[in-house]
Amino acid sequence: MTGRLFVIGTGPGNPDQMTPEAAAAVSKATEFYGYGPYLDRLNLRSDQRRQASDNREELDRASTALRAAATGATVCVVSGGDPGVFAMAAAVCEAIDNGPKEWRTIDLVVLPGITAMLAVAARIGAPLGHDFCAISLSDNLKPWNIIENRLAMAAKAGFVIALYNPISKARPWQLGKAFDLLRSDLPATTPVIFGRAAGRPDEQITIQPLAEADATTADMATCVIIGSPETKVITRDGKPDLVYTPRFIAGGNR
Amino acid sequence: MTGRLFVIGTGPGNPDQMTPEAAAAVSKATEFYGYGPYLDRLNLRSDQRRQASDNREELDRASTALRAAATGATVCVVSGGDPGVFAMAAAVCEAIDNGPKEWRTIDLVVLPGITAMLAVAARIGAPLGHDFCAISLSDNLKPWNIIENRLAMAAKAGFVIALYNPISKARPWQLGKAFDLLRSDLPATTPVIFGRAAGRPDEQITIQPLAEADATTADMATCVIIGSPETKVITRDGKPDLVYTPRFIAGGNR
Repeated sequence: MTGRLFVIGTGPGNPDQMTPEAAAAVSKATEFYGYGPYLDRLNLRSDQRRQASDNREELDRASTALRAAATGATVCVVSGGDPGVFAMAAAVCEAIDNGPKEWRTIDLVVLPGITAMLAVAARIGAPLGHDFCAISLSDNLKPWNIIENRLAMAAKAGFVIALYNPISKARPWQLGKAFDLLRSDLPATTPVIFGRAAGRPDEQITIQPLAEADATTADMATCVIIGSPETKVITRDGKPDLVYTPRFIAGGNR
Repeated sequence: MTGRLFVIGTGPGNPDQMTPEAAAAVSKATEFYGYGPYLDRLNLRSDQRRQASDNREELDRASTALRAAATGATVCVVSGGDPGVFAMAAAVCEAIDNGPKEWRTIDLVVLPGITAMLAVAARIGAPLGHDFCAISLSDNLKPWNIIENRLAMAAKAGFVIALYNPISKARPWQLGKAFDLLRSDLPATTPVIFGRAAGRPDEQITIQPLAEADATTADMATCVIIGSPETKVITRDGKPDLVYTPRFIAGGNR
């Protein structure tokens, strides 16, 4: 008997930013797997079971969830944000790829969510209004020299850069180093947005020019967005600044 | 008297993928501005007025909406997907930046949505599971040589590449040219995903290897995702293939 495996995203934490589609999957499933703080965002019924695990155990969690689904259960793997962006959907696919053949017959349903960079961008204007990239700054799962190369290429391309996993206790220097590298390629005034807990009551959004960007402003729950040379800041009396990247670069066909 | 301007995203078109937060904004607003097919996704009441405009008139539409908000109305500007990704939030910011000072006092509220690449990725597995970029392939608003440079840098960086606005009647050759350029940098087997109307009844998702990728598979409503050299395909008996980009590149700290 083969069950069903939902992989959902809660969005950044504000319940009003979780899609009805994801909420419907939560009401159908009976077994939940995820990082504790993400599971805490769901209002589970007493007949629904949760198994919280540490944030760094994605592959074990995916395999455990797949084993449960293979026995016929309706299972829900829970990510914050979007499950497809530096989150559980890739871990589940990886486990299927390397796991027993029967896991390929499980009814896998991945449901998208609001990923952090979109929530942060919305709170500050439209910094992702033109071409951009998203880079995980964690060198746990890839070598640091690849990250350095990606930052350099992103700056050369003129992409706005969204950084996920910018800093943690075990990775204290990487964000400062990234700012240092980008300072040689980007204007000193380039706006850097530190977006923490966007859309939640404890939200903190800070803008600093790249020349003075202070990595200690970020923590594990922060998404950092670094503008491109085109990105602009609008000041407003009595309201927070707006940051946006214009849709237009001179020389197009229109 | 100063009104309020919501800028919302409907998501890709499936009503269950629009956030409750965006739905609440729709119920509050009385004046709606947007591209007709996006406005059609809302079930407006008889006391709510809609003004549809062509997809290429973003800046005019933004200014009209800001003028209405400046008179005290509660206005809603509607994008498909996420309003911050190649959509109306940047046009509204641009209009504020270049408009009369009073527009800076308008209560501007941008609400995020599920952008096309997230919806397409979810339907096929997790192709955006690692570092990626999003590029608009339209050379209406920027010169083609900038797009070529960005594609080259993205390939050098090893990013998965999501292409928005891949093709239209007025821009028939750009996507084919992009595939040609990428063929010199990426493996022939790199999976190319054509995701049309993801999550809607008329959804069409197609995977082709880059060597054989056919630009005519795409239309205006398609988001194209091109894998990185790390991206993998999982075949499943009786089920569609899964495509994912692993979280892991050998040589990290763990």
